[in-house]
Amino acid sequence: MKTDALLTRWLERTEEQLQDALPDPELAPQRLHQAMRYAALGGGKRMRPMLVYAAGYLFAAEEARLDAAAVAVELIHAYSLVHDDLPAMDDDDLRRGRPTTHIAFDEATAILAGDALQTRAFEILADAWMPPALALNCIKTLAGASGAAGMCGGQALDIDATGQQQALADLKHMHALKTGALIRAAVRMGALCGEASDAQLAQLDSFADTLGLAFQVRDDILDVEASSEQLGKTAGKDQAQDKSTFPSLLGMDGAKATLSELATAMQAALIPFGQRAAALAALAELTVRRSH
Amino acid sequence: MKTDALLTRWLERTEEQLQDALPDPELAPQRLHQAMRYAALGGGKRMRPMLVYAAGYLFAAEEARLDAAAVAVELIHAYSLVHDDLPAMDDDDLRRGRPTTHIAFDEATAILAGDALQTRAFEILADAWMPPALALNCIKTLAGASGAAGMCGGQALDIDATGQQQALADLKHMHALKTGALIRAAVRMGALCGEASDAQLAQLDSFADTLGLAFQVRDDILDVEASSEQLGKTAGKDQAQDKSTFPSLLGMDGAKATLSELATAMQAALIPFGQRAAALAALAELTVRRSH
Repeated sequence: MKTDALLTRWLERTEEQLQDALPDPELAPQRLHQAMRYAALGGGKRMRPMLVYAAGYLFAAEEARLDAAAVAVELIHAYSLVHDDLPAMDDDDLRRGRPTTHIAFDEATAILAGDALQTRAFEILADAWMPPALALNCIKTLAGASGAAGMCGGQALDIDATGQQQALADLKHMHALKTGALIRAAVRMGALCGEASDAQLAQLDSFADTLGLAFQVRDDILDVEASSEQLGKTAGKDQAQDKSTFPSLLGMDGAKATLSELATAMQAALIPFGQRAAALAALAELTVRRSH
Repeated sequence: MKTDALLTRWLERTEEQLQDALPDPELAPQRLHQAMRYAALGGGKRMRPMLVYAAGYLFAAEEARLDAAAVAVELIHAYSLVHDDLPAMDDDDLRRGRPTTHIAFDEATAILAGDALQTRAFEILADAWMPPALALNCIKTLAGASGAAGMCGGQALDIDATGQQQALADLKHMHALKTGALIRAAVRMGALCGEASDAQLAQLDSFADTLGLAFQVRDDILDVEASSEQLGKTAGKDQAQDKSTFPSLLGMDGAKATLSELATAMQAALIPFGQRAAALAALAELTVRRSH
């Protein structure tokens, strides 16, 4: 199947799976259920689920086996956005071109909806159509990537660093936790579902780490160059919050040169996987070129 | 072994397991790690972990197998307290006789610490010393009890009901989700680790549901009759927030009579389990008689 057709199919599959995974908005407690759906179904690029399917595709993993991992990683991502946007955190009103969850609902509901989305992610994996040992391995992978040693830890480092000049190594480390860990978990869960070897997992970890970094460099560039309308979220926030970014540390030309090097490294990392890696390569390319 | 000695051993075991389960306060991000430890290690009755051990004891389950379930349910409980105390939720400054986590640290750190405690609960179960299918069953049980269909859902119902007169059935339903579901999950995980039969699980569910209700009736009575100093948290909050409670709906004498009936029902529910149920019976008794 052509890469474009694969990507379209996986995107549709992700949306369907997410619809099914979320609680009925007509059932009590309606407001909580509606907030969970609002937070998780409001568009988004679905990059992490797409990475699960694309990594699984390398090893011809059954898509029905990948579904739970795809949904779970997106629910973790969705919950993190809801909590990051809260007034006590980044205090943001706009996300994916719509009011953030605590604006559309209220702060208490947003906190609870984020909490319940996280719970649902692990519940989905515990109920997944896959062998128990594999499901546990996915839960371990996802939990490790999203807790204090991963995404939450990265967010804490980000808060600690706000208003301070960061060294490039510290900036990279913070982003490796804050966004990189979940991207790595997505790729790794896909590969685990395909029963990849340890050597293949290591090779894909390296690809995913590069992708995570490229994602963030592109994010920082867009924060400077794109409008809020294009981004669907508030632009120019990094500078307003006096955060260190790749453009602020490397200059805009330096950041763009870095991004170009990362793109080359990603394509090289996929060579051992041959033709089946075309979809993963396309997702990497989209990350580097995306305009929002 | 005597019941008192068992309870003491399980309490010590819980504290040790929790110490080990939480991240190093000296390692970055220190503030997040310290907040997680502050929230989870600040005393507390450890009722839920004790229920795990006591339910497992009915079936002579190995304690090493029960450890992960005991820790996981307490981490979920700890995270829920951190988030419930936030300004946007119950806005409470005092918990277990100390400042709440967002007061001792800050609101952003409290949100993240709660998030990371939840993640850690599922990670601990995914890494548990038990057969994979059993670990998955525990994860399913705990997630079902703590998400939108359990604790988070109950908290949402509680928020919806604040300032409104609730019918007794609605009040019971709200508490069955908000506190009952996690208590039931604790008992059930202990029993699952002991490979209880379906009939035994059903019998223990019924015991646990009664215990959850008794816990809440006692909580409502204490909120009226005890001081903040005795409780270690703000007393008189229900009336101040105009919440329906068992004493407000049944009168204080009615609430106390109900509690006494529930105590009798709990002891009856444990008869089929014989002498080994003495510890579980003692925990039920403590719940009914507790002064904080």
